[in-house]
Amino acid sequence: MPSYKAPVADYLFLLNDVLQIERHAELPAYSDLSVPLLEATLAGAARLCEEVLAPLNRVGDSEGCTRHEDGSVTTPKGFSNAYRQYCKGGWVGMSFPEEFGGQGLPSLLGVVVTEFTSAANLALGMYPGLTRGAAAALLAHGTLEQKATYLANMLAGTWTGTMNLTEAHCGTDLGLLRTRAVPQSDGSYRISGTKIFISAGEHDMAENIVHLVLARIDGAPAGVKGISLFVVPKFIPTADGALGPRNSLSCGSIEHKMGIHGNSTCVMNFDNATGWLVGESNRGLNAMFTMMNEARLMVGTNGLAISDVAYQNAAAYAKERLQSRSPRGPKLPEKPADPLIVHPDVRRMLLTIRARTEGARALVAWTGLQQDIASRSGDPQARERAEDYMGLLTPVIKGVLTDWGLDNAVLAQQVWGGHGYIAENGMEQFVRDARINQIYEGANGVQALDLVGRKIVWNSGRALKSFIAEVKGYLDTRTQAQGMAAFVDPVRESLVRLEAATCWISKSRNENPDDAAAAAYDYMHLLGLVAVGYMWCRMAEAALTRMASAPDRDNQHLNSKLITGRFFMERLLPETALLRERVSSGADNIMALPDEAF
Amino acid sequence: MPSYKAPVADYLFLLNDVLQIERHAELPAYSDLSVPLLEATLAGAARLCEEVLAPLNRVGDSEGCTRHEDGSVTTPKGFSNAYRQYCKGGWVGMSFPEEFGGQGLPSLLGVVVTEFTSAANLALGMYPGLTRGAAAALLAHGTLEQKATYLANMLAGTWTGTMNLTEAHCGTDLGLLRTRAVPQSDGSYRISGTKIFISAGEHDMAENIVHLVLARIDGAPAGVKGISLFVVPKFIPTADGALGPRNSLSCGSIEHKMGIHGNSTCVMNFDNATGWLVGESNRGLNAMFTMMNEARLMVGTNGLAISDVAYQNAAAYAKERLQSRSPRGPKLPEKPADPLIVHPDVRRMLLTIRARTEGARALVAWTGLQQDIASRSGDPQARERAEDYMGLLTPVIKGVLTDWGLDNAVLAQQVWGGHGYIAENGMEQFVRDARINQIYEGANGVQALDLVGRKIVWNSGRALKSFIAEVKGYLDTRTQAQGMAAFVDPVRESLVRLEAATCWISKSRNENPDDAAAAAYDYMHLLGLVAVGYMWCRMAEAALTRMASAPDRDNQHLNSKLITGRFFMERLLPETALLRERVSSGADNIMALPDEAF
Repeated sequence: MPSYKAPVADYLFLLNDVLQIERHAELPAYSDLSVPLLEATLAGAARLCEEVLAPLNRVGDSEGCTRHEDGSVTTPKGFSNAYRQYCKGGWVGMSFPEEFGGQGLPSLLGVVVTEFTSAANLALGMYPGLTRGAAAALLAHGTLEQKATYLANMLAGTWTGTMNLTEAHCGTDLGLLRTRAVPQSDGSYRISGTKIFISAGEHDMAENIVHLVLARIDGAPAGVKGISLFVVPKFIPTADGALGPRNSLSCGSIEHKMGIHGNSTCVMNFDNATGWLVGESNRGLNAMFTMMNEARLMVGTNGLAISDVAYQNAAAYAKERLQSRSPRGPKLPEKPADPLIVHPDVRRMLLTIRARTEGARALVAWTGLQQDIASRSGDPQARERAEDYMGLLTPVIKGVLTDWGLDNAVLAQQVWGGHGYIAENGMEQFVRDARINQIYEGANGVQALDLVGRKIVWNSGRALKSFIAEVKGYLDTRTQAQGMAAFVDPVRESLVRLEAATCWISKSRNENPDDAAAAAYDYMHLLGLVAVGYMWCRMAEAALTRMASAPDRDNQHLNSKLITGRFFMERLLPETALLRERVSSGADNIMALPDEAF
Repeated sequence: MPSYKAPVADYLFLLNDVLQIERHAELPAYSDLSVPLLEATLAGAARLCEEVLAPLNRVGDSEGCTRHEDGSVTTPKGFSNAYRQYCKGGWVGMSFPEEFGGQGLPSLLGVVVTEFTSAANLALGMYPGLTRGAAAALLAHGTLEQKATYLANMLAGTWTGTMNLTEAHCGTDLGLLRTRAVPQSDGSYRISGTKIFISAGEHDMAENIVHLVLARIDGAPAGVKGISLFVVPKFIPTADGALGPRNSLSCGSIEHKMGIHGNSTCVMNFDNATGWLVGESNRGLNAMFTMMNEARLMVGTNGLAISDVAYQNAAAYAKERLQSRSPRGPKLPEKPADPLIVHPDVRRMLLTIRARTEGARALVAWTGLQQDIASRSGDPQARERAEDYMGLLTPVIKGVLTDWGLDNAVLAQQVWGGHGYIAENGMEQFVRDARINQIYEGANGVQALDLVGRKIVWNSGRALKSFIAEVKGYLDTRTQAQGMAAFVDPVRESLVRLEAATCWISKSRNENPDDAAAAAYDYMHLLGLVAVGYMWCRMAEAALTRMASAPDRDNQHLNSKLITGRFFMERLLPETALLRERVSSGADNIMALPDEAF
């Protein structure tokens, strides 16, 4: 069975040496963040994830969830208990304001805990993950009364949350949705309709489930401009906050899926269920986006999380399994064969995973910092820039990190050879679980369109310009720095490709609307590689700085950073040239085939 | 549930227009191959695969195989019956010599039927597939008596075959194997040991199972030079060919796997089982390679097969599912949304699968022709060249086509969005099934090492030189041909990259033995893209020729070829530059990290 060790040391390096969070002490939650508190927090999360959540990952996969005739759902053995421990530790609401029952910790630390949780047990981590997303939407758009009614219980985890968007005939295109909301004289609404693919829609781990539901108020305009958001609890809370009557909604069935078996994916039937409007009517999609953006960053982080746990188990196997000899001749002549790790091609697979994963980790951490700046900084300009970065990078983190997540899980499974295909060894579960990240919260192709159609366009491309200026400024001031050329030069080259690709899209967009859409996917990966390349520069710089300041200490971690970073620069980053070429190959090679010829 | 339509028209185009098989009438089996016979053969195979095998693919996945306490194994409902029809059609031994009960048809047609079979039902197709591999090994290395005893029943399918190589501690590194063979006074051997991952090791579809087993004769040298091959039947045939006593071998358990659930993957226990030497003692690996090379071509073809069936179901969904609007504005304003097929990014995914799949199909067909030339031509030089090509391209077909197979299945699943993750829709099964092709019959990393360490080295690189000369000769004579520049020019550019990469490997090999191994994987993909690029040139030429000769006929198939080929040239082939750069980045970025730092 796979094991998991949370990357605490790597995060301490990122927070202290790369992001230098002590320089952000002006942010409210950061000023209290002493190094011992930081270390204790990460160690606490690590222990829970390693010892309680991870051992249930295989169980969750093999048992799955069971729906009973009365519509109730049983989660896998041990899930409830583990979830209670998770709640008890305060991990659900850790990054939410204290006034609503959260812990007031930085979002940055929330990212760290999301990675640990999802790496240990993706299916289990989705329950609190979705709760956080729903709580964020209520926090941003709910009335004072709604916040008072729901948030404390949700952030304590005694109630969980869901997002009800998809219907059988519409997922991406929510403008088509049919679920109805009929206004009542008491200000509430009656919600009727069927939603599908509702993660954690019904289960036995919490007292109540708070459904956020997109529906169309009778008489509302067609399309996306007639969609409103409603809060529709499983049990209707009484005035004093206790559980009131059962609402008329139920789980009609649960799906049999490729993976994440431990999470119940429900068909939810709303049959004149009582709900209350969240935010303005007909502005529901806007409100839901708060939740979706949170969720997209979480899903991207999940891609990274599975990459790491898959890597750990592949690396352990490669060091242990004896098979064939090194190309240079026997390394362990006293053994019947050398360990797999001597083989260059096995190392190629492992380093590919690792270089992506550590780079991706830096990127989500950096984005977590931006989230804190955006929501907590006193400087409006800093807030605006940080918000721009988050908007720009959300689709990239979701799209690129989850594509890497699948590919990384496949590579890790490949290291195990035939044994990787056997269920009991757990490597194939990582592949099946990782696959969902590319699909839900907006399929990756939709992320690419969001990036190219909106994020690099809004405000005359302000966000991208600002990000490119930041990277360029960084590179320009490190050109002569000792040991940095191997990192700075390739990233500069790739940045030029990114600018050229951006330019091409801007120009062609007006001539042929298909061009930008045809270029979107490759462009998203191009930007992802540049952003992660920038992170590798910053990690290399931090490693070099620390090595210079204490040359005698044990520096395997720092040395590994530099070697892994070089692998990224020499073997992964060059893909930017291919992506740039594909972008400007235009839409014609994609659009020329008549529909009926497919 | 997915459906399947065998690509008969595409194969007729390949056989008649691209490979022009009528020009090979000098080959024994080809002279009888009239166009009507060819069409009837393909249509017959297509019908069986579409109507009998394909509908059982989901059943096989959801039911799987069951082992009973007595060691017997039940295959999924319907498998036995379908298999009987497959045998009755003569498809098991179709490409084997008539004197041993085969049909004497070209290997080229065997490739076609393998694609149809595996696309329809990979797990079911493995039973006859392995039988063919075992029969090929007996045909090449067995005694006259062995051939007489086994081949007719195997080629009729009433007996099936297996290959028993892997043991728990060794898969790739067969030199470590421990299964023992003790010589008996009657010339037989007693075989004892445990083999794992034995596909079709036990089942209820045939009267007898003929195990080919690698074992070490007592006193034989250690390592690969002490391995012998044995035939070890489940029931020992009597002198008159009937089933005799049950041999002392049994299925100890069956594996729970990620996919191919319909095939029973067995742990096989040999407990003083009676076996007979096949070929020379201590030359077993050599004999087994006959089987493995057959099997590797089959597995590569399986990668292509799953790509095609996944494509078909993704394309059908894309044309039917209404979601969002074209970037150019509504295409079907009367409908609530446009079909997915209007979206450039959906077309990008579909065309990626298709350009690889049709190119790969041409490559396996071309290799099937080489197989026939190698085994049946009267011209020794032609035989030698064809054998060279097969040796060179076997690892490429296995490694590249199966990597594409997984990636293609993932893309096809992605077109289905969330519905692709649901088991009932069958798209996720393609992904799980496709995954095994990258692992078994030598993991793809091992294929790459075979290519770089042996195939491009043997006889001073004769095979590669000959292949490069063929491609170059082809390109040089088409440079001025009408409409061919869009195909010839990019392939020429990629060929230059292949030569540069080859040169780099040859030079660095002597300085650093890790360099070739570090470059192997990317080199394999580079050669694969060039080979498939060459096939696209030949397909484009054939399409242009036919369009010129009959400009008025319905030419959607030909027109699609040219468009799909252009997509290959503009969006896929450019990856050769990236691969070439990776090859010459050297082993240092892979070897620098100390083992313990992984």
